[in-house]
Amino acid sequence: MNTAGELVCHLVFAPSGRQGAVAEGLTLLDAARSLGVELESICGGRQTCGKCQVSVEEGDFAKHALQSKTSHLSAVEAREQAYWKRHPAHGRRLACAARVCGDLVICVPPESQAHKQIIAKGVSDRVIDIRPTVRQLYVECEPAQLDDRQGDWERLQSALRQQWGLSGLTIDLRTLRTLQDALRQGNHAVSVTLWQDTEILRVQPGYAEGAYGIAIDVGSTTLAAYLCDLRTGQQLATSAAMNPQVRFGEDLMSRVSYAMTHSDGAARMHRAILGALNDLCRECASAANLDPDGIVDFVLVGNSVMHHIMLGIDPVELGGAPFALAVSGPVDLKARDFGITAAAQAARLHVLPCIAGQNGADNMAVLLAEAPHEQDRTILVVDIGTNAEILLGNRNRILAASSPTGPAFEGAQIQHGQRAAPGAIERVRIEPGTVEPTFKVIGSDHWSGHSDAAPATGICGSGIIEAVAELYLSGVIDAFGKFNDDVAHSCPRIRWQGRTPEFVIAEAHQTTTGAPIVITQNDVRAIQLAKAALFAGIRLLMNRLGVSFIDEIRLAGAFGNFISPRHAITLGLIPECDPARVVSVGNAAGQGARMALLNRELRGAAVLLAQQVEYVSIAVEPSFQEEFVSAMSFPNAGSVTRSPRRERRRRLAVTVANTELETL
Amino acid sequence: MNTAGELVCHLVFAPSGRQGAVAEGLTLLDAARSLGVELESICGGRQTCGKCQVSVEEGDFAKHALQSKTSHLSAVEAREQAYWKRHPAHGRRLACAARVCGDLVICVPPESQAHKQIIAKGVSDRVIDIRPTVRQLYVECEPAQLDDRQGDWERLQSALRQQWGLSGLTIDLRTLRTLQDALRQGNHAVSVTLWQDTEILRVQPGYAEGAYGIAIDVGSTTLAAYLCDLRTGQQLATSAAMNPQVRFGEDLMSRVSYAMTHSDGAARMHRAILGALNDLCRECASAANLDPDGIVDFVLVGNSVMHHIMLGIDPVELGGAPFALAVSGPVDLKARDFGITAAAQAARLHVLPCIAGQNGADNMAVLLAEAPHEQDRTILVVDIGTNAEILLGNRNRILAASSPTGPAFEGAQIQHGQRAAPGAIERVRIEPGTVEPTFKVIGSDHWSGHSDAAPATGICGSGIIEAVAELYLSGVIDAFGKFNDDVAHSCPRIRWQGRTPEFVIAEAHQTTTGAPIVITQNDVRAIQLAKAALFAGIRLLMNRLGVSFIDEIRLAGAFGNFISPRHAITLGLIPECDPARVVSVGNAAGQGARMALLNRELRGAAVLLAQQVEYVSIAVEPSFQEEFVSAMSFPNAGSVTRSPRRERRRRLAVTVANTELETL
Repeated sequence: MNTAGELVCHLVFAPSGRQGAVAEGLTLLDAARSLGVELESICGGRQTCGKCQVSVEEGDFAKHALQSKTSHLSAVEAREQAYWKRHPAHGRRLACAARVCGDLVICVPPESQAHKQIIAKGVSDRVIDIRPTVRQLYVECEPAQLDDRQGDWERLQSALRQQWGLSGLTIDLRTLRTLQDALRQGNHAVSVTLWQDTEILRVQPGYAEGAYGIAIDVGSTTLAAYLCDLRTGQQLATSAAMNPQVRFGEDLMSRVSYAMTHSDGAARMHRAILGALNDLCRECASAANLDPDGIVDFVLVGNSVMHHIMLGIDPVELGGAPFALAVSGPVDLKARDFGITAAAQAARLHVLPCIAGQNGADNMAVLLAEAPHEQDRTILVVDIGTNAEILLGNRNRILAASSPTGPAFEGAQIQHGQRAAPGAIERVRIEPGTVEPTFKVIGSDHWSGHSDAAPATGICGSGIIEAVAELYLSGVIDAFGKFNDDVAHSCPRIRWQGRTPEFVIAEAHQTTTGAPIVITQNDVRAIQLAKAALFAGIRLLMNRLGVSFIDEIRLAGAFGNFISPRHAITLGLIPECDPARVVSVGNAAGQGARMALLNRELRGAAVLLAQQVEYVSIAVEPSFQEEFVSAMSFPNAGSVTRSPRRERRRRLAVTVANTELETL
Repeated sequence: MNTAGELVCHLVFAPSGRQGAVAEGLTLLDAARSLGVELESICGGRQTCGKCQVSVEEGDFAKHALQSKTSHLSAVEAREQAYWKRHPAHGRRLACAARVCGDLVICVPPESQAHKQIIAKGVSDRVIDIRPTVRQLYVECEPAQLDDRQGDWERLQSALRQQWGLSGLTIDLRTLRTLQDALRQGNHAVSVTLWQDTEILRVQPGYAEGAYGIAIDVGSTTLAAYLCDLRTGQQLATSAAMNPQVRFGEDLMSRVSYAMTHSDGAARMHRAILGALNDLCRECASAANLDPDGIVDFVLVGNSVMHHIMLGIDPVELGGAPFALAVSGPVDLKARDFGITAAAQAARLHVLPCIAGQNGADNMAVLLAEAPHEQDRTILVVDIGTNAEILLGNRNRILAASSPTGPAFEGAQIQHGQRAAPGAIERVRIEPGTVEPTFKVIGSDHWSGHSDAAPATGICGSGIIEAVAELYLSGVIDAFGKFNDDVAHSCPRIRWQGRTPEFVIAEAHQTTTGAPIVITQNDVRAIQLAKAALFAGIRLLMNRLGVSFIDEIRLAGAFGNFISPRHAITLGLIPECDPARVVSVGNAAGQGARMALLNRELRGAAVLLAQQVEYVSIAVEPSFQEEFVSAMSFPNAGSVTRSPRRERRRRLAVTVANTELETL
């Protein structure tokens, strides 16, 4: 008996292990709450939603000094019985119906636990608490009466205040328009979808469940969408598409330039991206067999230029110093005001904050996903796309930068370069002795030479990296990227264009075009420039952080995901590191967007992180040029023992690089 | 010298008379503030806007024991001098520039006073404090720097925090899109238009002033718009138009019925009204020579059916008991979400609360405009349109009701009835002895018989009221509305249609159609029914309030404005009252909307009033039928001495009325 004179029973909840004394007669739902065990509930204890199912562990629990029996719960009454008739499940009880009559050990199955968690796939195996911005509530309203002058919206507010303790709510006009019909259909009972406990986004008749969201990574080249169940965190569908802005310019600067030179340039690119995003949302919904009306929340990320264009903001200020963002903080909107129509009418949309004018919301998403700021060891995260976004640091300090690598890593500016697509050479090996190459194309499991090997259409970024690295390892090119004269004149794979040698990776009969696929001196030079820009950026951050060795490297982005760590280190694309500690993490920006979709607290965390991250504007760092020139050689000048001859050639490379730097 | 060791000067501000000691060296703007004198200022003391102009009263002021001289102010310096060069004004100083050097009497001209007031025209001469929801602020931002990663929006927020003490602001996406261009054009200085000190609606380059709003009364038949300067309260233009929904149904119930019988009925009526409202806004702006972009705030009112249709809410629930409103409280929106596009992109819109399902936001506006709740005497306000909205009460208690008068007062259901338009008979006199009628039509200054009198096209509501009242006064019809047999057979103006007499108001040669305009027995009956419905409603409210006499009657609405109080009392349309105390107040609903546009506190007051007003649903009052029947006679049964014969006829009238009541 407790001090209020009630009989008390001892309860243990598994798997959390929370336990304590509760008054006899309490529902299990209230008992759980009083012991800090949060159970799911949409209907608020009306024995309707079935979200709070639990079971009784029968037996003697000496450890807890109690005997648990099903009979220690009140009998199943009519309403609960009706529920089980509709949704049969053996041995389960509704926690909102069953009352405590004795000591109990209660087992809460995972689907009944509120605040669910999911494990984000990837190296870090991060746990994501499922705390979306929206929740669904079932509520029963008073019917209208002639002497009650209140509107139905006011009556719904009263019901939500009384039944759920909510006040100060607003409702979107488009949702308001559906209210009376929903009340009529639901016989005065409705399920509302509530955003941030402040605004009603949707009203559905009677009891309804299901709220979905989409996270979208708007890349310069690729759009990737992830449709998730906002209650469970489950990913229901993904979809990807080309960014249709590519036709206005391959890289970011050419798109900014398009906006500067065409009066409606920014508007055209905005319309193009919105059209594609709407298509993507419809595709995702269709793949998951959902009505787009069920999508109520969005999180979008993108680099700063994509961020501005998708918000309909002219990116012209991002085209030159001081690279002023129109807005750096998070943006919260109605999806329809943003331009997304393939969703619930009042759906919400959140854009993560940008780190700087040249370091956008995509890198913020990478930061959320990889969370180097939560690690003791120093981690380098490189997201390589048209620009390379770099994060370096640990629990104490995080630095960010953006390196103008240009599009060489994506296969542009390369003679036979192409995007990563079926038919593109993605793997290359060159036999050191014979200098004989073999390759593998995307979409085929076999290396060239095998009878089932597919013909090549071109060479993509990861293929070029491997090709150049293998050319260096086999001595065809030297540490400064120049074709080795001795080899060039003796090797059957070298073809001469006038006085310039080029290396044939795929012979005419191995390609779809019937013409050989080659690596030229210019291709090598383009890769040198790109990798020098990337490596110089990383060096500057390492210097700034005061570290000479990196514990772990994570390669993100579509390119990073396919790159071979060994070849990347061989070329000096990334600093020396235990190859086992160089890992590909896939689309980390998309992953971060998905995490912010499923957990609203991460959105707040992003605002603080944006302030904490130290942004290094590497283009204006005095030592950038020197680092850049040093990084032109393979693997890197700093790590090559300098002979007098090498030193002469290094100086020459500096001159060449300086010339090329100016045209970068 | 004050306690801080500063020299103090004595200042007096005219015309407020506020006075006190201030420290020498303060600007007049700060000195005024410290003494509670609020001066206008948009630029925040930057000597840019010129809103804080004042002048010095020179002379000896024995009463204040001080001598005031222009030389008691600091000299005019370069920036102020530059202002006066651009805007010459003799003897004025900018209060934000001039510093106090001695005792002063400062004269604040009306245009420099903050919190302006205007006098609302009308019987009550109400003073409206000009406190709109928006204000304009001039602000100078820091230019972007390479090492400052904040966005321009964040920099603007910092500047507004530092220069104006504002925080927690939001910005509309469409406004955000214009921000960088405005900063560029304004050389980092902009003028922002702020709504409720929370959201930025507009950003203009450099110093800019001018914010306008439109109040709109959406009547069943007529739309009326009032364009106002939100800073001064001045009305710059008005515009009116027919409600295009008339083609879907003359009265409210036929429009509700249209929505019920056509699947897209409500949507069609919504589109029609929005099209007309946008046209109206453009007309107003054009009449005031303004770009519609300058319009940043709207207040709309309308009866509950118009309220729902204009918000895009299906009015079907308003078609029958319990007449449930979808929303009864105020609605705050973006004008574009409402569907108004002829305004600033981020313009706001407010719809006043409704009193009840049959007593809309229009009657709330009438209540704000006429404010019977602020009066000691008991006031009746009747707004007669298709429905009659009634307010009765005083400081202690306010009752509201709506009477289903039907459209007879608007000329519908009357043989030669028509809307009030040029050519319609609006005034009628019948010579008691000769029973000879004369009339006057709208648009003509002359009575019929005059050589310049215009021919008649029909008869409008006020004309019918006068005609029936004059017929009664001249004995052509009796107290029960029946044509008097004796007169009917002898009067040359009586024409017989079979066995039914009718009275010729205008002979064939006096009309545009060449056919006479007559008042039939049915016309008289229609007026009787309408006036009985109105009067019965008023009676019920009087009974409920416990008053038998009304101190003052105000007739509102287009019809109320033209009605002759004497004839209205003669017919028993309104209760007996000193005719000098029966006044027409014009479009009180439109006036109330305008007041809520200019003073945001009235919007809050409306919410409280909506709760305080007692709504009487007269259709379900047990005594309504009896009151209705009593009110069928002229002036009213209750006030007619009952002879046995009259009593017989009264009973007959009751029977007739009962029959007709059922078909009402």
